[in-house]
Amino acid sequence: MGEFDLIKQYFTRPVRRAVLGIGDDCALLAPTPGMQLAVSSDMLVEGRHFLSTVAPQRLGHKALAVNLSDLAACGAQPLAFTLALAMPRVDEAWLAGLAEGLFALADRHDIELVGGDTTAGPLNLCITVFGEVPPGRALRRDGARAGDALWVSHPAGGGIGDARLALEVFRGQVALPGDNFESVRQAMECPQPRVALGLALRGLATSAIDLSDGLVGDLRHVLQRSGVGACIEVDAVPVSDVLARQPLALRRECTLAGGDDYELLFTAPAHAQAAVLAAAAQAGVAVSCIGRIEAEAGLRLRDGRGEFLAALPRGFDHFSG
Amino acid sequence: MGEFDLIKQYFTRPVRRAVLGIGDDCALLAPTPGMQLAVSSDMLVEGRHFLSTVAPQRLGHKALAVNLSDLAACGAQPLAFTLALAMPRVDEAWLAGLAEGLFALADRHDIELVGGDTTAGPLNLCITVFGEVPPGRALRRDGARAGDALWVSHPAGGGIGDARLALEVFRGQVALPGDNFESVRQAMECPQPRVALGLALRGLATSAIDLSDGLVGDLRHVLQRSGVGACIEVDAVPVSDVLARQPLALRRECTLAGGDDYELLFTAPAHAQAAVLAAAAQAGVAVSCIGRIEAEAGLRLRDGRGEFLAALPRGFDHFSG
Repeated sequence: MGEFDLIKQYFTRPVRRAVLGIGDDCALLAPTPGMQLAVSSDMLVEGRHFLSTVAPQRLGHKALAVNLSDLAACGAQPLAFTLALAMPRVDEAWLAGLAEGLFALADRHDIELVGGDTTAGPLNLCITVFGEVPPGRALRRDGARAGDALWVSHPAGGGIGDARLALEVFRGQVALPGDNFESVRQAMECPQPRVALGLALRGLATSAIDLSDGLVGDLRHVLQRSGVGACIEVDAVPVSDVLARQPLALRRECTLAGGDDYELLFTAPAHAQAAVLAAAAQAGVAVSCIGRIEAEAGLRLRDGRGEFLAALPRGFDHFSG
Repeated sequence: MGEFDLIKQYFTRPVRRAVLGIGDDCALLAPTPGMQLAVSSDMLVEGRHFLSTVAPQRLGHKALAVNLSDLAACGAQPLAFTLALAMPRVDEAWLAGLAEGLFALADRHDIELVGGDTTAGPLNLCITVFGEVPPGRALRRDGARAGDALWVSHPAGGGIGDARLALEVFRGQVALPGDNFESVRQAMECPQPRVALGLALRGLATSAIDLSDGLVGDLRHVLQRSGVGACIEVDAVPVSDVLARQPLALRRECTLAGGDDYELLFTAPAHAQAAVLAAAAQAGVAVSCIGRIEAEAGLRLRDGRGEFLAALPRGFDHFSG
């Protein structure tokens, strides 16, 4: 099967909203006049962002999910995406699975694949997503203010850090019973982008970022750009039942420096607590208040007994992490 | 040097036109109200789209050039781009060179890098470009009509096929004197996207495509989408002095199935010849008429003596080429 046949068979569907989809030199979109265009691009590399053992359906889901998560963190309404795909060989069953996972998530968010590229090469997926947001209404990293409450989204009854726990199992550092492993593996391989929450937080959150490199590392980006500090109440960070049963050090590593959570970390004025909870309920997502923005620069971690933690975990960095 | 430092040092420049550039979850663009957005994404893989010997400046140039070439083929005005980059390790001299070549071309087209991603992995560059075009004015592949003249752009005094000839030298199939090699190598490594020509052809060309996979293969895409056939006058296809000195079979292989030319192949009504030449002159690019669109399906190749060629070279395909 050649390049053009595989694009046609697995990735070409009639466009509904775009002016022109796959099959020309460019796709053509008709943005809503007056809206700003939010753009983000994430590249997933085998062995780095996913394991070779991942089911193609889940990989297709995740490649799009991590990009939609960036739109969510901006409060943008998703519109469309492109996919560039390098793969060592054409495996039709794998491609069918990838397309299935990709389009299932795309359909759930009513967005369409408008273009891209396929080539031979080491397995690599690069998705670029486009969304819309009214001028001045995008959630940004630079709006956190001293006194704001610090919030994180999470699955109802669950928490953050499960994806990192799953990675530790794959690395052979941790053993889990089968059903526990399946639940954290699901967190790692099938993150749910919090698009509805991002939209509901427009005009309410003062800043937002999605958790991809770990809570502490990602929060640092917000603090740096906003020119503020923060204190995290580490024992208020929500965890799943599975992670709650792990030793304290591992639990903290997973929640604070885990990475791959794709939850929203955001700030809102302290008086807006009821509005934040209402927005989250409307979006069907749980949120927890886990700390406070402070005028004093730097990041402090405090446990449930009021003790400050001495060492801070670092965020994930692809070249030094 | 970590991921965030290298982004800051090599790829972050203040945005002039975008609302928000690198450093947040998404970039924010403010498209001109009423314009359509043209989007294209191309992925370049080491050993497939470029050799490990290429100078990083030229690689930076080419990665953006092949994407701008897609905007050119749509007649779109370039606006901005994202870059996702996977690389095995951080080599600062290489990164500085890559950024130099990338930004030199970006500056020439007055576009800015607004976002992207960097990660560890086998070398891979994925650029997504954005451009604008008035509604209904984009050049497309599906507008060629029987009777239209078939045109190709090329360097003044040069032709197409040089990039393929350079590849044959790298493959050890062809030997060239040093200065000849340098000139075809330049064609392969530093293609010039025909953005000005694409803009000048709006309302004039009936269809357009950029030459990336070879003249015959790319023309087939136009014929298929337009529901027409064509005849190429193979001896009218412009070639450089260097390629003109090669054996006939190699010359034809390079011009007809060469790939990597990044020239525009376009059609225009036969009566518009003077207007096409004027548009090309305005854009500062040479163009040659190399055939005609015909109602009869299929593609025919005819030489200067009026003989039809029996065998057609195929276009490049990443999985069967």
